[in-house]
Amino acid sequence: MKIAVDVMGTDYGPGEIIAGAVSGAEAFDCEVVLVGDKAQIEKILADKKFSASRLGRVTIEHADEVIEMSEQPSVAVRRKKNASVVVAARLLKEGRCNAVISPGSTGAAVAAALLVIGRIPGVERPTITTPIPNQHGTTVLLDSGANVDSKPHHLLQAAIMGSLYAERVLRIKRPRVGLLNIGEEESKGNEQVLATYPLLKEAASINFVGNAEGRDITNGKIDVVVCDGFVGNVILKFAEGLSVVILNLIKDAIKSSGFFPKIAAAFLLPALSGLKKKLDVAEYGGAPLLGVDGTFIICHGSSKAKEIYSAIRVAVDFEKNKLIEHIKEAIKEKEEMG
Amino acid sequence: MKIAVDVMGTDYGPGEIIAGAVSGAEAFDCEVVLVGDKAQIEKILADKKFSASRLGRVTIEHADEVIEMSEQPSVAVRRKKNASVVVAARLLKEGRCNAVISPGSTGAAVAAALLVIGRIPGVERPTITTPIPNQHGTTVLLDSGANVDSKPHHLLQAAIMGSLYAERVLRIKRPRVGLLNIGEEESKGNEQVLATYPLLKEAASINFVGNAEGRDITNGKIDVVVCDGFVGNVILKFAEGLSVVILNLIKDAIKSSGFFPKIAAAFLLPALSGLKKKLDVAEYGGAPLLGVDGTFIICHGSSKAKEIYSAIRVAVDFEKNKLIEHIKEAIKEKEEMG
Repeated sequence: MKIAVDVMGTDYGPGEIIAGAVSGAEAFDCEVVLVGDKAQIEKILADKKFSASRLGRVTIEHADEVIEMSEQPSVAVRRKKNASVVVAARLLKEGRCNAVISPGSTGAAVAAALLVIGRIPGVERPTITTPIPNQHGTTVLLDSGANVDSKPHHLLQAAIMGSLYAERVLRIKRPRVGLLNIGEEESKGNEQVLATYPLLKEAASINFVGNAEGRDITNGKIDVVVCDGFVGNVILKFAEGLSVVILNLIKDAIKSSGFFPKIAAAFLLPALSGLKKKLDVAEYGGAPLLGVDGTFIICHGSSKAKEIYSAIRVAVDFEKNKLIEHIKEAIKEKEEMG
Repeated sequence: MKIAVDVMGTDYGPGEIIAGAVSGAEAFDCEVVLVGDKAQIEKILADKKFSASRLGRVTIEHADEVIEMSEQPSVAVRRKKNASVVVAARLLKEGRCNAVISPGSTGAAVAAALLVIGRIPGVERPTITTPIPNQHGTTVLLDSGANVDSKPHHLLQAAIMGSLYAERVLRIKRPRVGLLNIGEEESKGNEQVLATYPLLKEAASINFVGNAEGRDITNGKIDVVVCDGFVGNVILKFAEGLSVVILNLIKDAIKSSGFFPKIAAAFLLPALSGLKKKLDVAEYGGAPLLGVDGTFIICHGSSKAKEIYSAIRVAVDFEKNKLIEHIKEAIKEKEEMG
């Protein structure tokens, strides 16, 4: 198994990405293709003094262009044939790797996946699928930003794909699928969700449990929350912001708690930093782009080694569990029935 | 100044609502009309042994019906003429009070406000306007659930009203207004926000600073965040849920922090409980329903005395600052220009 990792264009530079990719390859028994500037990658590999057995799992694919955050993604992907994310997608398209991990610009990743790899037959809109820590485990939120103004049919496909991911990769049995809405009743909602509800209710292949409200994203009652990408994107960015504010408020509360505050702070602040990592939902092992004809994991632009390491695990799980094949079958079945 | 408070139909019962209303009346120098079951209210007033000076600020308006959470709001408001929220709204309509505070069902409150009091001329859709604690102060989120599928014109009116509220009640100078979106660029977004952007950009009476992303709701960079009520409702309920999860995780972190954990917990957990209150955005002194022809504050169904006390302060501020008149003028001006 071979996983292409785009090492360029992230906040902390290629060193972090390479470190995560190399240790992930060893831990999860696969090979990695590091895609990016060859000279830079070689220098980093030499500097890090990896063992020969680790280096045996690594190859380099040179790519001398990078798509910047400020570029219009689909234009940039068409123009920069040698951008690292485009090269990585091409490796997948040509069967030279089994999966892509892309921690750069999300827009460029989605555009490269769509334009170079293409969609699973029958899937109209791939969706970004984000696992979020909840009270007891993990809830999947999709679409978390690939599309806006989704049609009910797109949300149905998202529900089917998200449910398979929850079941086969996150190992949640009979995942409960909820439609994100402003109330529990079937009669609630905007035009989009009112039209989507009956489609989900009728879909035999998913365990649809009705409408989900905002609080159900984290209370552990729903495993797969389906929503428009506009709503999903806003929620994820809001969660990032709110987590930071809450942790800052808590640090203030600890520091001003009166009794041996400094000692307490010394012991608790490290625990809080770990918590911050856990709560930074965008860094939770990567968000698969479901509906693309291949395993494609999007990671946050601020990913460090640990996130890439986790993303390698997720990509290996996708392959082992043949998730893409299962999605193809489920979509085909649904399309033939509908 | 006289403020009608609907004391029925909340999670903690009329005792909490009455306690908050009576102490708020004294603190902010106004009178309160307690609307609800007269016998119950009289018994509570007697049990609580308020001083004569406090009781001098209190009158009772009997209402023997309550609208339940499960009822269809507009149907229930039309049918139950003697429901407490309907009676409170009628007091305002008839000029027998200056403001209404409604901590029961939000749907019933919106319906009663619309059907009994009516809208400010020119306002098509009143909006629930929720103040949220941010990193440095307060950000206003509207619409947070009164309407879905809002038209760009409705969001423009929301921006104008929310900006006046931020300026005149929250005392934020030249409040920065942002349009909630999935990216900063003007070209980003769904059909609704793409069509709304130019309207906000052209509106001379507001300080529009462009698109806001989810994280801008809490980072203190935007004072007034404008969005569709579907998105706003989902965000607020998500915030409630996420706050609970984060605080539970922190309690776990504290309890397992190794060194004198029990002592640390004993000192820190009370601080965290206070924090929880602060973060429960829905209880942040009430959410004004802007666009109604009168001061109408919606409070959470789980309000305790403190929230009602704060809502009295907000209602008094509305009156002192003539917010409704200012909104009327601004809407009239905009409608005449457009």
